[in-house]
Amino acid sequence: MGGNTFGKIFKITTWGESHGTSIGVVVDGVPAGMPLSEADIQRELDRRRPGQSVLATPRKERDEVEILSGVFQGKTLGTPISMLVRNVDVDSSPYEDVRTRPRPGHADLAYRLKFGHVDHRGGGRASARETIGRVAAGAIAKKLLAAHRVEVLAHTVEAAGVKLERDPSPQEIRKNVERNPMRCADMKIAERMKEAVLKAASEGDSTGGMVEVIALGVPAGLGEPVFEKLDAEIARALMSIGSVKAVLIGAGCKFAEMRGSEANDPIALRGGRLVTKTNNAGGILGGISTGMPIVVRIAVKPTPSITKPQQTVDMVKMEEGKIRLRGRFDPNICPRIVPVAEAMLALVLVDHMLRAGKIDPVRFR
Amino acid sequence: MGGNTFGKIFKITTWGESHGTSIGVVVDGVPAGMPLSEADIQRELDRRRPGQSVLATPRKERDEVEILSGVFQGKTLGTPISMLVRNVDVDSSPYEDVRTRPRPGHADLAYRLKFGHVDHRGGGRASARETIGRVAAGAIAKKLLAAHRVEVLAHTVEAAGVKLERDPSPQEIRKNVERNPMRCADMKIAERMKEAVLKAASEGDSTGGMVEVIALGVPAGLGEPVFEKLDAEIARALMSIGSVKAVLIGAGCKFAEMRGSEANDPIALRGGRLVTKTNNAGGILGGISTGMPIVVRIAVKPTPSITKPQQTVDMVKMEEGKIRLRGRFDPNICPRIVPVAEAMLALVLVDHMLRAGKIDPVRFR
Amino acid sequence: MGGNTFGKIFKITTWGESHGTSIGVVVDGVPAGMPLSEADIQRELDRRRPGQSVLATPRKERDEVEILSGVFQGKTLGTPISMLVRNVDVDSSPYEDVRTRPRPGHADLAYRLKFGHVDHRGGGRASARETIGRVAAGAIAKKLLAAHRVEVLAHTVEAAGVKLERDPSPQEIRKNVERNPMRCADMKIAERMKEAVLKAASEGDSTGGMVEVIALGVPAGLGEPVFEKLDAEIARALMSIGSVKAVLIGAGCKFAEMRGSEANDPIALRGGRLVTKTNNAGGILGGISTGMPIVVRIAVKPTPSITKPQQTVDMVKMEEGKIRLRGRFDPNICPRIVPVAEAMLALVLVDHMLRAGKIDPVRFR
Amino acid sequence: MGGNTFGKIFKITTWGESHGTSIGVVVDGVPAGMPLSEADIQRELDRRRPGQSVLATPRKERDEVEILSGVFQGKTLGTPISMLVRNVDVDSSPYEDVRTRPRPGHADLAYRLKFGHVDHRGGGRASARETIGRVAAGAIAKKLLAAHRVEVLAHTVEAAGVKLERDPSPQEIRKNVERNPMRCADMKIAERMKEAVLKAASEGDSTGGMVEVIALGVPAGLGEPVFEKLDAEIARALMSIGSVKAVLIGAGCKFAEMRGSEANDPIALRGGRLVTKTNNAGGILGGISTGMPIVVRIAVKPTPSITKPQQTVDMVKMEEGKIRLRGRFDPNICPRIVPVAEAMLALVLVDHMLRAGKIDPVRFR
Repeated sequence: MGGNTFGKIFKITTWGESHGTSIGVVVDGVPAGMPLSEADIQRELDRRRPGQSVLATPRKERDEVEILSGVFQGKTLGTPISMLVRNVDVDSSPYEDVRTRPRPGHADLAYRLKFGHVDHRGGGRASARETIGRVAAGAIAKKLLAAHRVEVLAHTVEAAGVKLERDPSPQEIRKNVERNPMRCADMKIAERMKEAVLKAASEGDSTGGMVEVIALGVPAGLGEPVFEKLDAEIARALMSIGSVKAVLIGAGCKFAEMRGSEANDPIALRGGRLVTKTNNAGGILGGISTGMPIVVRIAVKPTPSITKPQQTVDMVKMEEGKIRLRGRFDPNICPRIVPVAEAMLALVLVDHMLRAGKIDPVRFR
Repeated sequence: MGGNTFGKIFKITTWGESHGTSIGVVVDGVPAGMPLSEADIQRELDRRRPGQSVLATPRKERDEVEILSGVFQGKTLGTPISMLVRNVDVDSSPYEDVRTRPRPGHADLAYRLKFGHVDHRGGGRASARETIGRVAAGAIAKKLLAAHRVEVLAHTVEAAGVKLERDPSPQEIRKNVERNPMRCADMKIAERMKEAVLKAASEGDSTGGMVEVIALGVPAGLGEPVFEKLDAEIARALMSIGSVKAVLIGAGCKFAEMRGSEANDPIALRGGRLVTKTNNAGGILGGISTGMPIVVRIAVKPTPSITKPQQTVDMVKMEEGKIRLRGRFDPNICPRIVPVAEAMLALVLVDHMLRAGKIDPVRFR
Repeated sequence: MGGNTFGKIFKITTWGESHGTSIGVVVDGVPAGMPLSEADIQRELDRRRPGQSVLATPRKERDEVEILSGVFQGKTLGTPISMLVRNVDVDSSPYEDVRTRPRPGHADLAYRLKFGHVDHRGGGRASARETIGRVAAGAIAKKLLAAHRVEVLAHTVEAAGVKLERDPSPQEIRKNVERNPMRCADMKIAERMKEAVLKAASEGDSTGGMVEVIALGVPAGLGEPVFEKLDAEIARALMSIGSVKAVLIGAGCKFAEMRGSEANDPIALRGGRLVTKTNNAGGILGGISTGMPIVVRIAVKPTPSITKPQQTVDMVKMEEGKIRLRGRFDPNICPRIVPVAEAMLALVLVDHMLRAGKIDPVRFR
Repeated sequence: MGGNTFGKIFKITTWGESHGTSIGVVVDGVPAGMPLSEADIQRELDRRRPGQSVLATPRKERDEVEILSGVFQGKTLGTPISMLVRNVDVDSSPYEDVRTRPRPGHADLAYRLKFGHVDHRGGGRASARETIGRVAAGAIAKKLLAAHRVEVLAHTVEAAGVKLERDPSPQEIRKNVERNPMRCADMKIAERMKEAVLKAASEGDSTGGMVEVIALGVPAGLGEPVFEKLDAEIARALMSIGSVKAVLIGAGCKFAEMRGSEANDPIALRGGRLVTKTNNAGGILGGISTGMPIVVRIAVKPTPSITKPQQTVDMVKMEEGKIRLRGRFDPNICPRIVPVAEAMLALVLVDHMLRAGKIDPVRFR
């Protein structure tokens, strides 16, 4: 039981059901004295929120954050920062069918088998709204990382079969990601992705994709062998996001078809600093950061909510039948995974910076 | 620091450097009263050991396990089980070059940047010998799982570009995996894999591949949302194995190109039991097991040790140069990853069976 | 950093400053399906609340709890239960002096040295209001324990030098504790305690005392040697309460003057069950419960807030001076420690019942 | 289950039964580059060992430590340090009676009720030999603390009813403790303690006492409110030692009879540094160290092994009877608790120094 806490030193605990009173998070382990305001959090929550474009569910969720503790006179206290977002304007009526008939591809079946008593409204605890807590906590992590010159960026590299075949520069990512609804670093590819996504949506179907998350400025030496390796903890963090079904570090699955002489990144000197000439390793060797950029990709499954009828079982009558979902859903979840993936990578990195003594655990400096 | 402990209830702590006195593990959290002998452990260690075929390094390591505590009169005591394997016949001379020049693709660079003081002999703590502790602990986990009708199996599905394109039956895996040096479930594919691996090896090079790990008989309800989801913890466990660079649950990266209507596994009744007609989800929805088989794939990078000369930097002189490794190395590490991957999945599952109350934590029943 | 989480399976995280917006707690690890309402929590909070008698600070704090998540249709969901109490009617003006001059015996000095930036109003995070989260979580723990026939009781055994010299029966404790302001199990001793407390108070001073906490119905076998022994975890839990400076198990300090032949509790059979004829051990041997009542005493220091002038240092001017606190304070904190001590013991026991498999971790039964 | 691991960053895992093959510990989280040899460990183990005087059991245990991993060329590697002590010359024959008849005051009864299957020889896991792992790990902690100018000292302040009524200076403790078999800081009191202990022993009985543990040079700011307070974690650490039944911080139980005006330590300036004029708080306020000496006392129960006949139950026949232990036992365990208590306090402090960023977690400096 449990499982709603993440991190060893920078520790977050999330709570809340989709159609309950509210959603929130407690962040414990933030050094004292760091400037922090609700605006810092709201900025990231606004990126996560649905209803931002034709590509996302048109549900209107304002998602206004309230900081309840841990901040005094505009600065953190070193005590737990509790944050809350009220659930407003929820309409649970479309979920009546779900009460007895689990939606294929959703958590419904598994939750029901595990817990017996389940809040079926809006997906309950397994809703995408759960990521509000992650993103709010991630906003603090990102701010603390930025003060230590570490930056986390994510972007959609594949959606509905349309791929970004090249590696965009950080500048391109920073510039373009918030300028198109797919959060793709290339505006042209973004347009093609959007068309492909909308085509499937017009057929009552959804599509999957891939998101890349990178971190720049990460110092060498993060990661604790042998079980708390940096890549192992990143894999856990990203796989814990709903809809993520694969995590690939650096060259990822391409390694399977490489030879050692191609795969091994040659070691070189650049300006007196040790670097690798390529970065197949994604910035991590033996589970420890090398100082090269951290590069991770995640495979995102198609949104399970589709309007096509699907086969399921009525768990009360115990008989097979169909379910047809009403309402409108994200036709592709990648753009909304982007801020969540950034949050999770930021949380892992800030925790490991603290573990490795790269950030003072008590006072913000 | 730290990081050498894995698990919350069934907890293992591994220790040891490749050319130190010995390698070992302490397993804490095994219920009292379970029959256990050194033979149970040795069987799995023998599968992990090198020198078993032309495809593995011909180093002879006997790797005999000694149980030091936690077992009395052939049964576990509920106290920590400490196990040790002595390092014998080690020859550290081939590692003199490595002392100052990190091997590309190896942990050398990262360890040196992190710790400053490093045991360079045989890879030190980052050696594949570190997995002895995992496999020894995994043997206990597998035995406890077997008593609860859960079975873990792994096999090589791709090596040196040769792929097993179909899903073999559990029977095939059980029958064939130990009958060929690639640990492939299909004897013919195994032969082709072997040839491709040996060809690269003859050119002084190594090759990568993919390993599939499955678990049968896993009850529904394992996994704790939202951060200790079963797939998240599996990802961490498998990614913590050296050379693993990607973890894919169920359909994995294929989800990126699917539509929701294909990806969602239809829910059905079979013999009064809820099942899914397909298993793209790999047995896990919302981070919780559904009762379907757990299916995971991992991408394994080519063994970084190759005899071709490679570019590196002398960290004492701080000048670029070449390194050429002497000795013979595993030309493909997949077959030896197989027992380690089984061990890690077994450790995750046994821990989650305990967390979910499916195994009595105090007394073996 | 961190430190605001308690428990391994039944895990609570508290947050909030005394004069911030609110105080709260997230409880993770409660099995699904347990009936729970705000009334269950409010009952315990009302016992903790100040302003209940002449013996407690007359500040009026209503302390109304709101359950924000984890409960649906009157039953727990197995997801985190978030609870919040708004801080109302706070008056921070009496704390202006404290901003620069730490109060002797209070946490002020230590917080300031550690964090630099501190919320001085009402004691901030170190206020007794922090225990609201403990008591709210403890109410859930007590309800779950009660369903498994375990009862936790506390009472004041010494205050202002007046001692209860005999061991009252559980019946007496249940009957009398809420009938007198000292929460003493003996009405006559209670009266004498009260007089002694009020006498000191009339002199602008405060007094200390001792509280006993007991648990009945605890099954044998709780506690995990060698570091997570039941008595060790009880000691930590109770010592973490502000003002508690000693924890004594069973005969406690009396053991120092005993001989082995007196101290060892003889083992006997009663109704076919193994018992001990005396209970010097306080129900715990080798860190494991024996099935006898758990008996623990805690020493409570005098409330540090007194109206007498005291010597301190102005930390801005760095010069010695006096501080004289205004306002009215609890002249003796023992009666208000009683519900907190019960909560903490309940939290330890419920966590250990879960660890030992005595309570189902997933579904309430 | 589990429970054999202590610490969050500086983490130790102990293992081993009294009459098994050996006893050991794995220490994870020691920074890399610290000079360490077996002599550093052996020195502390020799203090713990029995057979040192007429006051301890005359069993000869050489207890030679072997460092198996984590040290290379005389310096730590930042990897786990595994240490082992072989059990030699064990004679299990005197324990035949114990197999079915639990010894009063011992862990026998509780272990049997919990685990069912128990190693009865020499007390098994609940033996005082278990502390070998603690003391070996503590030796590393003490060395790391010493490099940061923190010193831990313990001494016997009461035994068999004879008390040291005054507070000895650190110089006296350092000078005298190893010069008398009671490990008392006052040579005359030591002599009287010894006589009282031997008198009881001559009557086949044992005696209890109290040990004080202090730490000097502890920086302000250690301890994480609200559950991982420094005093709470010290209480847990010391209470986890077998035979310890009470933990008192600073004035401890005396607080119960004090008034606030006596109990509160006045705050003053000394050489520009904030100090308290008295130290009733034992160096800890609000769970955080203030920079004053840490002062803790523990009550030690009489050794449960006595030669007088005692009442117990035969758990196979389920009938009451007597047990009379053969052999010779420590007549008073206080002197042997001294090094163990030092080790436990050192472990808590080093862990908190690391948590608070006062010791670099990766590299020894």
